[in-house]
Amino acid sequence: MAHYMRSERLYHVMLPQQFEEALMERLFDTADLIKEITRKSNGSGFLKSVLQHKKAMLYFTQPSTRTFLSFLGACQLVGMDTAEVRDPSLSSEYKGESQEDGVRVFSSYFDCIVMRDPKPGFCEYMAYLLDTTGRSVPILNGGSGKDQHPTQALLDLYTMHRSFLSRGGIRKKRYAFVGDLLRGRAVRSVVFLLSQYQDLEFHFVAPDAFQIAPDLEDHLKTLGISHHLSEDLESVLPEMDCVYMTRLQDEYDLSGESQLVDYSRYSLDLGKVKNMKPESIILHPLPRRDEIHPEVDADPRAMYWRQLRNGMYLRAALLLHVFGAAHRLQEY
Amino acid sequence: MAHYMRSERLYHVMLPQQFEEALMERLFDTADLIKEITRKSNGSGFLKSVLQHKKAMLYFTQPSTRTFLSFLGACQLVGMDTAEVRDPSLSSEYKGESQEDGVRVFSSYFDCIVMRDPKPGFCEYMAYLLDTTGRSVPILNGGSGKDQHPTQALLDLYTMHRSFLSRGGIRKKRYAFVGDLLRGRAVRSVVFLLSQYQDLEFHFVAPDAFQIAPDLEDHLKTLGISHHLSEDLESVLPEMDCVYMTRLQDEYDLSGESQLVDYSRYSLDLGKVKNMKPESIILHPLPRRDEIHPEVDADPRAMYWRQLRNGMYLRAALLLHVFGAAHRLQEY
Amino acid sequence: MAHYMRSERLYHVMLPQQFEEALMERLFDTADLIKEITRKSNGSGFLKSVLQHKKAMLYFTQPSTRTFLSFLGACQLVGMDTAEVRDPSLSSEYKGESQEDGVRVFSSYFDCIVMRDPKPGFCEYMAYLLDTTGRSVPILNGGSGKDQHPTQALLDLYTMHRSFLSRGGIRKKRYAFVGDLLRGRAVRSVVFLLSQYQDLEFHFVAPDAFQIAPDLEDHLKTLGISHHLSEDLESVLPEMDCVYMTRLQDEYDLSGESQLVDYSRYSLDLGKVKNMKPESIILHPLPRRDEIHPEVDADPRAMYWRQLRNGMYLRAALLLHVFGAAHRLQEY
Repeated sequence: MAHYMRSERLYHVMLPQQFEEALMERLFDTADLIKEITRKSNGSGFLKSVLQHKKAMLYFTQPSTRTFLSFLGACQLVGMDTAEVRDPSLSSEYKGESQEDGVRVFSSYFDCIVMRDPKPGFCEYMAYLLDTTGRSVPILNGGSGKDQHPTQALLDLYTMHRSFLSRGGIRKKRYAFVGDLLRGRAVRSVVFLLSQYQDLEFHFVAPDAFQIAPDLEDHLKTLGISHHLSEDLESVLPEMDCVYMTRLQDEYDLSGESQLVDYSRYSLDLGKVKNMKPESIILHPLPRRDEIHPEVDADPRAMYWRQLRNGMYLRAALLLHVFGAAHRLQEY
Repeated sequence: MAHYMRSERLYHVMLPQQFEEALMERLFDTADLIKEITRKSNGSGFLKSVLQHKKAMLYFTQPSTRTFLSFLGACQLVGMDTAEVRDPSLSSEYKGESQEDGVRVFSSYFDCIVMRDPKPGFCEYMAYLLDTTGRSVPILNGGSGKDQHPTQALLDLYTMHRSFLSRGGIRKKRYAFVGDLLRGRAVRSVVFLLSQYQDLEFHFVAPDAFQIAPDLEDHLKTLGISHHLSEDLESVLPEMDCVYMTRLQDEYDLSGESQLVDYSRYSLDLGKVKNMKPESIILHPLPRRDEIHPEVDADPRAMYWRQLRNGMYLRAALLLHVFGAAHRLQEY
Repeated sequence: MAHYMRSERLYHVMLPQQFEEALMERLFDTADLIKEITRKSNGSGFLKSVLQHKKAMLYFTQPSTRTFLSFLGACQLVGMDTAEVRDPSLSSEYKGESQEDGVRVFSSYFDCIVMRDPKPGFCEYMAYLLDTTGRSVPILNGGSGKDQHPTQALLDLYTMHRSFLSRGGIRKKRYAFVGDLLRGRAVRSVVFLLSQYQDLEFHFVAPDAFQIAPDLEDHLKTLGISHHLSEDLESVLPEMDCVYMTRLQDEYDLSGESQLVDYSRYSLDLGKVKNMKPESIILHPLPRRDEIHPEVDADPRAMYWRQLRNGMYLRAALLLHVFGAAHRLQEY
């Protein structure tokens, strides 16, 4: 991972594995500070001066609304100009240009590239390629392909961190992950990040066909982290501090396997939420379908909308970190 | 309408009915001031500081150039950052997310939503829904569906107001509305707003099949406002102070009824314009087809291009009003 | 060309013919200054204040990435707000509006229009039309149609200018133009601009079917500029100061004529580059296909990526010139 670093800071942001506990805590503090400053008069004006000399390319060739808008909003908070490429058919690729040259064009005009591309490993490959050119810029993985979505995992932990602030933080809690745990990349990344904290207990509640992959279970066994697999959400709910819901990822179906599952068993309504602990929290990476009934939104345990909003502040914090500007918030 | 207000200001901007004469005059004054300030050196810099802490989502899923760009230009004048969603196919909706959740995402990242959506009542529904979440943001109707386009009506009146400034203002004038009066939403809204003023006379000049709807005529009768229906433009022109032209709205044809009409009778060329009063004005909500010959553009009575430009200033004034920042212009 | 000028400055930027040597040198100096200022702390903040009162419409209805992004980046450098229209199907044209009215809408909201449209002569026509309205704004040709791409030619010369700075500048050098010289508009424009300089020698290296057009050769003959046509790249390379590569423009094929040519003879790899003079330079307007092997990118003679980046600074300089703001850089 050292090749993704510069002067002890993150440079390319590629993988959840880059985020150790100490770094996360620093990012969380920066995000808190950003949130606080925006609330003060003239705070926004100050924030927008911090990275006004930087420009970001938002390269999202895979459909996305919320991650795209979250990064856009984050750039705007810290004063970065942006450009976007979302539909490669508007681009020069039709003239026979390689996608490598295309991305190098971005690095010529912009100071960082936030990238979501469907091709596996494309982000890492571009980071490698740019590093060889002598004119590299940071690449931030915005959730490329099937496997990695580091900033989503970060914002999930940021929300847990804030929610459990008065109760000792993330450690010593029980976490349930519910739904399509095999194919949802969010859960993999969150579990990885969480496994750095002490005394956690994980419950994986999923239909048998979509339970977590063996390698993730092996990872937890190796670390000696307590974990339980289950198919029954209702029996697990009353003991949890955090319930992390996910939607069915049927876009990855190979032959209609989602049809064979009764996914309604892995959903929440007010009836089920009543059995949860009063101070517990419900997360969801969004978008949702039917796995959380909208009536739950008004329950104080529902944290998914706040989670969404936290993402914008966390991503702004990450941009400040990458450009070595986080310390400038002290000026305010 | 009270539920669209906050602290005696407009919050959600939904309907022409929200605009009473006193409020319109305030908005017109603010728009005048914006125009004036932009002309002074450093004026733009000052204006762009006023709402630099606010961000707008421009949600235009119905095709639009001029209203979209007018709102975008208005946001830029007062320093707001913007994002846009114009093609829902780039969005998360393909993942099965409801449009309600989609709009709630916008309200998480942005401070207001300007919205044009083809579904009838969608704006009002979203305003209602956001108000129940405890994290509402203002929604500005950018001309949704078939019926309402409040900011268009406002900018029409702003142009009349400015044009008649030295002649006693909007009142005591004769207004002709010409063309497809049945299906054009602009005319409905303008007539409604105008009917608050004293001593107006309305002439509705249209082919019989596209005359104003009975409810609009009833509205005028109830208020005792003088009005006349006619099929003959040329006999009406010489007496008018304002001639408001409209295009054929054949996108609403059910079975080719537009084909049955000789619309060329409801058009202007220099020959016809010669018979108009020298100080009268010609308006058009644009886009136009053949109902005003381009040779008319150079006539001093042609106000439709100025009308277009006024719209940007008026919308900027509306944004300042909604965010309670109009008074800040006094600082300059 | 005088009708494209205002107060001795360029107003509409239409044709390479508008750029005389003295003007080019001024633009190059301004571009140098911009580059220098962006490197200083607070330099970006100052630059972004210079044209913060101006807004640009980027009207690119022909596919383009690099020119579009280069102009966008240029606008952002000098603080201009931007809007873009790239897909006319999102616009009002479906309502039957003429493209003339559409462009006039832009001139109502924006202070300049950067335009790339596939229709021949469209830019010039719109400039003419806007000038007759009494409310014109500058139009900058962003490479419309098949013939003209003035800012590309300018940035090419800017790169030559910088590369040859310590060697007497652009004059007294040997230039080779390689590839599809018949159909690539870049070469035409560059050759025209270069032909103002003293003591140049041109070599046109192309397959016979794609050699330069007779009118360009006549132009050089008339001026008495030394030039040579050839089909053999390798024999020419060792003597050149500048090798300008181009791609095959097969999108203009009428009946597959590109298939009949062995274009690999008009490409560079490290082996061929070794035979070039040590202080020579390689240019390419990009995008490239196979005519320059990526292994050449790391060679110090490869200037095409720098050329790309120079374009952004040069275009920013052009915007400052058009708005009469270049002298304001002295304030810094």
